[in-house]
Amino acid sequence: MIKVIELKRTITDSNDRDAASLRRELTERGIFLLNLMSAPGSGKTTLLSRTITDLAGKARIGVMEADIASDVDALRINALGAESIQVHTDGMCHMDAGMTRNGLAGFGSESEIVFLENIGNLICPAEFDTGAHRNVMILSLPEGDDKPLKYPLMFQKCDALIITKMDAAPYFNFDLDAAKRRVLALNPQIRIFPLSAKTGEGMEAWENWLLQEWEKQKHA
Amino acid sequence: MIKVIELKRTITDSNDRDAASLRRELTERGIFLLNLMSAPGSGKTTLLSRTITDLAGKARIGVMEADIASDVDALRINALGAESIQVHTDGMCHMDAGMTRNGLAGFGSESEIVFLENIGNLICPAEFDTGAHRNVMILSLPEGDDKPLKYPLMFQKCDALIITKMDAAPYFNFDLDAAKRRVLALNPQIRIFPLSAKTGEGMEAWENWLLQEWEKQKHA
Repeated sequence: MIKVIELKRTITDSNDRDAASLRRELTERGIFLLNLMSAPGSGKTTLLSRTITDLAGKARIGVMEADIASDVDALRINALGAESIQVHTDGMCHMDAGMTRNGLAGFGSESEIVFLENIGNLICPAEFDTGAHRNVMILSLPEGDDKPLKYPLMFQKCDALIITKMDAAPYFNFDLDAAKRRVLALNPQIRIFPLSAKTGEGMEAWENWLLQEWEKQKHA
Repeated sequence: MIKVIELKRTITDSNDRDAASLRRELTERGIFLLNLMSAPGSGKTTLLSRTITDLAGKARIGVMEADIASDVDALRINALGAESIQVHTDGMCHMDAGMTRNGLAGFGSESEIVFLENIGNLICPAEFDTGAHRNVMILSLPEGDDKPLKYPLMFQKCDALIITKMDAAPYFNFDLDAAKRRVLALNPQIRIFPLSAKTGEGMEAWENWLLQEWEKQKHA
């Protein structure tokens, strides 16, 4: 059974303040929250599925799936035996801290790392602090290496960028060096992980970073 | 030289009324306007480039490129010798009728068919009538066949759906029949055109539809 939570836009005079307070609460509860953002169809759920399987025994990972409609993603995560909640945003194009808090209330105490799989959108989610400890963005190879030029704020706001579907490289003109150069020009601190969740190539570097950031957070 | 127009959100008490009046004005000026919507990186500009080249001599096509930032798309269209305008939306995630009107003011009288290449976003643009005569959506094959389940409004609002990057089919698990079934369940009237702008396969059916709808509009 998938839990589905219908969210309405929360009324708050300061999303940033609300986000900061949610982040503190989560730290106290021992939950490491990551906000995962991307365009539609970039492979967020496939990446998370593989990450959950690869890290079984090392970390208990839960996922909050945010969508306008449907629960197809939560069903996929649930099938892995991971804690999974579907939230519906009532047509809203992003998650804010209040909505994240309301969604997290549906979680039990078993997950140590929680991914918020944000709405598929490269624009609006970048403008709202969800209260997550880290922001992670996915760019899938078929979307093209020019995306940093078009959606700069998203690339600036993230701690890590995962470039997915690298196994499809023979089919697309994607210049990885150009993509990296454009991303680093916007955000010199960002960590970049090209990988394929299908073949597994590159997964380890991403998973090591995740475990390492979680460790840092525990001692923060 | 690329014309760049910086747009601010227009204040209007009724976007729908404004859109209807823009549509009438464009009909009188002999401009057939299509609103082209999709997720980031679906191949909108590549599709338009090929369409412009294929229809040279049959229709003079202009393009209004809407983006948060950058003018990479307008430069590509301009290189084909087609009329092209770049509009920047000041961070806005969609175009409304007022913004479309302001952008169109930058066009000369040479274009008969104008494409508004809307912001790469499957959510917000679906909610705003831009004043276009037809709404067309692109879904690229790598995004997956489950997108109609997740972004239903976009599929409901469009007159035609173009499924791009069909040449990459061997690399992805995309079930075309399932995609069509899901789309038609939301919108039984929609026309669906699977194609590859790279190989040219399927382009003719889309271009014939475009010319036919333009013809209909002339006699509307």
